[in-house]
Amino acid sequence: MKKVAIIMGSDSDLPVVRKALDTLTGYGVPAEMHIMSAHRTPAETARFAAEARRNGFGVILAAAGKAAHLAGALAAGTTLPVIGIPMKSSDLGGMDALLSTVQMPSGIPVATVAIDGAVNAALLAVQILAVEDASLAEKLDAARADMAAAVRKKEAALQNELSNA
Amino acid sequence: MKKVAIIMGSDSDLPVVRKALDTLTGYGVPAEMHIMSAHRTPAETARFAAEARRNGFGVILAAAGKAAHLAGALAAGTTLPVIGIPMKSSDLGGMDALLSTVQMPSGIPVATVAIDGAVNAALLAVQILAVEDASLAEKLDAARADMAAAVRKKEAALQNELSNA
Amino acid sequence: MKKVAIIMGSDSDLPVVRKALDTLTGYGVPAEMHIMSAHRTPAETARFAAEARRNGFGVILAAAGKAAHLAGALAAGTTLPVIGIPMKSSDLGGMDALLSTVQMPSGIPVATVAIDGAVNAALLAVQILAVEDASLAEKLDAARADMAAAVRKKEAALQNELSNA
Amino acid sequence: MKKVAIIMGSDSDLPVVRKALDTLTGYGVPAEMHIMSAHRTPAETARFAAEARRNGFGVILAAAGKAAHLAGALAAGTTLPVIGIPMKSSDLGGMDALLSTVQMPSGIPVATVAIDGAVNAALLAVQILAVEDASLAEKLDAARADMAAAVRKKEAALQNELSNA
Amino acid sequence: MKKVAIIMGSDSDLPVVRKALDTLTGYGVPAEMHIMSAHRTPAETARFAAEARRNGFGVILAAAGKAAHLAGALAAGTTLPVIGIPMKSSDLGGMDALLSTVQMPSGIPVATVAIDGAVNAALLAVQILAVEDASLAEKLDAARADMAAAVRKKEAALQNELSNA
Amino acid sequence: MKKVAIIMGSDSDLPVVRKALDTLTGYGVPAEMHIMSAHRTPAETARFAAEARRNGFGVILAAAGKAAHLAGALAAGTTLPVIGIPMKSSDLGGMDALLSTVQMPSGIPVATVAIDGAVNAALLAVQILAVEDASLAEKLDAARADMAAAVRKKEAALQNELSNA
Amino acid sequence: MKKVAIIMGSDSDLPVVRKALDTLTGYGVPAEMHIMSAHRTPAETARFAAEARRNGFGVILAAAGKAAHLAGALAAGTTLPVIGIPMKSSDLGGMDALLSTVQMPSGIPVATVAIDGAVNAALLAVQILAVEDASLAEKLDAARADMAAAVRKKEAALQNELSNA
Amino acid sequence: MKKVAIIMGSDSDLPVVRKALDTLTGYGVPAEMHIMSAHRTPAETARFAAEARRNGFGVILAAAGKAAHLAGALAAGTTLPVIGIPMKSSDLGGMDALLSTVQMPSGIPVATVAIDGAVNAALLAVQILAVEDASLAEKLDAARADMAAAVRKKEAALQNELSNA
Repeated sequence: MKKVAIIMGSDSDLPVVRKALDTLTGYGVPAEMHIMSAHRTPAETARFAAEARRNGFGVILAAAGKAAHLAGALAAGTTLPVIGIPMKSSDLGGMDALLSTVQMPSGIPVATVAIDGAVNAALLAVQILAVEDASLAEKLDAARADMAAAVRKKEAALQNELSNA
Repeated sequence: MKKVAIIMGSDSDLPVVRKALDTLTGYGVPAEMHIMSAHRTPAETARFAAEARRNGFGVILAAAGKAAHLAGALAAGTTLPVIGIPMKSSDLGGMDALLSTVQMPSGIPVATVAIDGAVNAALLAVQILAVEDASLAEKLDAARADMAAAVRKKEAALQNELSNA
Repeated sequence: MKKVAIIMGSDSDLPVVRKALDTLTGYGVPAEMHIMSAHRTPAETARFAAEARRNGFGVILAAAGKAAHLAGALAAGTTLPVIGIPMKSSDLGGMDALLSTVQMPSGIPVATVAIDGAVNAALLAVQILAVEDASLAEKLDAARADMAAAVRKKEAALQNELSNA
Repeated sequence: MKKVAIIMGSDSDLPVVRKALDTLTGYGVPAEMHIMSAHRTPAETARFAAEARRNGFGVILAAAGKAAHLAGALAAGTTLPVIGIPMKSSDLGGMDALLSTVQMPSGIPVATVAIDGAVNAALLAVQILAVEDASLAEKLDAARADMAAAVRKKEAALQNELSNA
Repeated sequence: MKKVAIIMGSDSDLPVVRKALDTLTGYGVPAEMHIMSAHRTPAETARFAAEARRNGFGVILAAAGKAAHLAGALAAGTTLPVIGIPMKSSDLGGMDALLSTVQMPSGIPVATVAIDGAVNAALLAVQILAVEDASLAEKLDAARADMAAAVRKKEAALQNELSNA
Repeated sequence: MKKVAIIMGSDSDLPVVRKALDTLTGYGVPAEMHIMSAHRTPAETARFAAEARRNGFGVILAAAGKAAHLAGALAAGTTLPVIGIPMKSSDLGGMDALLSTVQMPSGIPVATVAIDGAVNAALLAVQILAVEDASLAEKLDAARADMAAAVRKKEAALQNELSNA
Repeated sequence: MKKVAIIMGSDSDLPVVRKALDTLTGYGVPAEMHIMSAHRTPAETARFAAEARRNGFGVILAAAGKAAHLAGALAAGTTLPVIGIPMKSSDLGGMDALLSTVQMPSGIPVATVAIDGAVNAALLAVQILAVEDASLAEKLDAARADMAAAVRKKEAALQNELSNA
Repeated sequence: MKKVAIIMGSDSDLPVVRKALDTLTGYGVPAEMHIMSAHRTPAETARFAAEARRNGFGVILAAAGKAAHLAGALAAGTTLPVIGIPMKSSDLGGMDALLSTVQMPSGIPVATVAIDGAVNAALLAVQILAVEDASLAEKLDAARADMAAAVRKKEAALQNELSNA
């Protein structure tokens, strides 16, 4: 199976981004997680992107905050799908990172998920790998069923609580 | 090859969305384009999503404006990757559609591109299909090279103009 | 009397949404409260909407955050009045939920109240039921009088405090 | 049947607001349309609200732009449901009117629809009146079916065009 | 001397608004502070505005949050200068109150100060009363000199600290 | 009577700002209109502010766009009331000018009106001068009555049109 | 004298960006203007930045719109001052480009000017070069004097017009 | 070497702004730090700007919040490069200060950095001084190398942790 790369601009993003790794691991998808900066280590970043496909990666996740260029910088260097996770910071609530990530110019798309949406970024990567992998698709469908069951369980608990009130 | 579905909420989106079809066709990717509404024909939309994988689709594009629920509604019904195109409307410049598309809850990702970003949505679909399709990946790389060449040609034209000024 | 349905997308919304139930109960309006998700249990959501009128509901309240599709998804499936409560989340202060709820396309209205406005959503439901229910309208008018009296009491307390300062 | 009042703050709002009247008329719902200003004729506005229920109104629509107080001012004077239509103006795209209309304090709800959403405001009024009027509810359901049919017709036209291309 | 009225929509605004009273008192300007609501006690509010000039008021301050109509409602009922203080609330940081207060329609101005700007609202009231009151103007000028002196003192303290570092 | 100064940062603001002069003239209030820039002619601006009171001015209006510092710069140099008119520009719809004008630090208020609100700025100036000028106050009250009459006339015309439809 | 580089991401930016070249030329500052893209020709962009200082450049201007990464990408590759010009685009008025340009992470600054602020970017470059170039500083001071004179001339024309009215 | 001036509008900005002084000191760049207010001590501010070049300053940093005029006021009085630091405040997250600082009119640029970006402002000042100072440029390049090394060290630590997990 193709690997997923999880790149973050700073280790301060780790608490949020680690959920992406956990999600991928939960699906049995091989993943690597790296700290790399579009601005502080641009050459490594460019090299990583350029070599990602032949190094066995299928999807790249990139998490960055503020003027979040990491996803775009990676996307500029590869034609693998790049998924951008805009990170919330304290002043503008992540709106700066969201716009910096999603408003990419024509020709170089970044698949953007919600602010701090590390889990969804990982799921999107799994969904991409599952396009040609029926057993992975089945796992995704099963997880959706579990999610639905969890909602129903909460609903049941709520009805139980309400009927006892 | 898996097909790409392009779904739009209203035929008023057609002038922008048609570029997605043209882009996919340019890559030789089979595509269908449909008008379907999360709010006006929700049952069709749900059925389309539910059957998309077994109907041979690999990726779904969804374009909608304002409280843009189409991409999310499709994503709720399939584990195929769903790419959301927030459409600009006259009042808030597409900010409403962007937030309605990208800020999805955990569990149901939508891969969001820029406001009116139909071409990038199509390219992202091609990139997803190319994860397991080396010849498609080569086409994408070639297109990137063409893009770079086009920039260099414009640069050359500018230098020519400046040196003659 | 018609019942009011209070639907929330996640049990994390319960602390805010419960105020809607309390408000309705205070008016003697029969209400049900359910957890149901536009994205995780879309079929239940659609079925609930489709059957709501014949199940004796008169109004539906829907609370959701971020890309808040719940109210719109319910509204798509019924012609009962649907009242949307945009829930605040930590990043954008509820602006995403507000725009996702209120900017509905022509044909499928959602009656939107303020961010986290569960009490007002419940009052609006009571006001809707009171259109044809004079005794309920009287209760609403009485509550308004109480509200005004409460303001006057606070004013009196303030004047008392100021004159003793 | 209860009447619907359509109130606008200025006759410059008429081109948009007239669609509300046309929509109501289309459903056979009796409606009055008035120009009244929260700021220029506050006493009339207050009096209209205070007498609306006993004058046979069931729902009030209020359209205003910028610091849009009209809906809130009417809501302060009646316990009838008041539907606010935030009007777009040239500078902030209607965001000012939207926030001024929707962010009402606890106790006095305004049912807010999309910016310039006059048709949806009217439909919401019809839906409110239909809570206790089965034949009106049937008309609404029929209109939904027509809306869905119109989408399907556009979809068929698109497929026709695409297959002939 | 004309009195200044300080009106707030809710006693939750008191901690911020009290600074306006303290500021006015510091200038020896007679002031009254009242709780009154544009939405909960609209009749009192309208009456207060209508009678303010003949009751000896020269300026009215109005503090309110969210869909902040209080200043506009008072301004609609008097031609005295009305100063609006948009109050911050937890979700949108006061942007809703700012736009609801400042974006008044032509004909009914509200003099708006910064979010939570109770001190500046009071100073503006003093400045208005000082237009025809030379001794009050002198006090304002003296306070400005004090303010400048305070800045210079902080600057001196900083230089002292820096030279000892 | 005290004079009103109307200051604008650029003659491109003249089409909007001229309405302030017309409004003041209509009330018989003596006014001067000047072009002066906080950034291009800061010394003149400071001098104008410093001398404004002793030169017979009672109120200063200041219109500027983008990073609109003019009102604040004038307010820094005088304790006369300064009214800020945020001017709309093409990119951010005047939001930049609004925030630059209204969010003044404690101690130096600017009375801010709506974006492009030149007429309201002038009316506010008249209202300020009318605090101690009963005949001016009467004119303002009369204008309000005229405004209300104009609304009623439009309402009558609308009713006439509707009844003939 | 050090040269100034003007880099733009796309030739569609040329009409605005050309003003930067004209401004620099007017000051006799040697300048080069290039089309180069952070996303389409990232290697050239990186190489240009890396070699800029030894190629005789003193300042780099970078103009880009939407998710404007060009200035940041150049800043990542050089310690020369990089001035970012956020370009307006049709949907969000340039807010996306502004935040993408200005919100740079610690360590890699971009000197950001106003949206579409090409002239100011050029002036800032001249000011930077003038830090160690007294004759250039004199030209800047002279231009400021001219600017002030132009304001005074417009003021004189306005006074003339007003006195003849 | 030219000195750098760090000006702040209020000593409440000191905790953030002090980082600029520390950064400059770390590069051996002589710096002065002052408290000065565009609104409370405008004359000192204007005089400081006017004399800055002949007093040996090469760059001016200005930190201010809300309607942040300090950078613009200094820029109006000198042709030295002025770097603006928009300070975050509690209500609008620094968006007001950002727009007030960056959206300067043509002719008077302010080099704006990120909200609370004191370190980057200092670095930008060093970069400006380094344009004609090769040894300072070397220090900057060395610091960039250190920054990259720090990222690589964090990356190594992460890989170590992951391989031990």
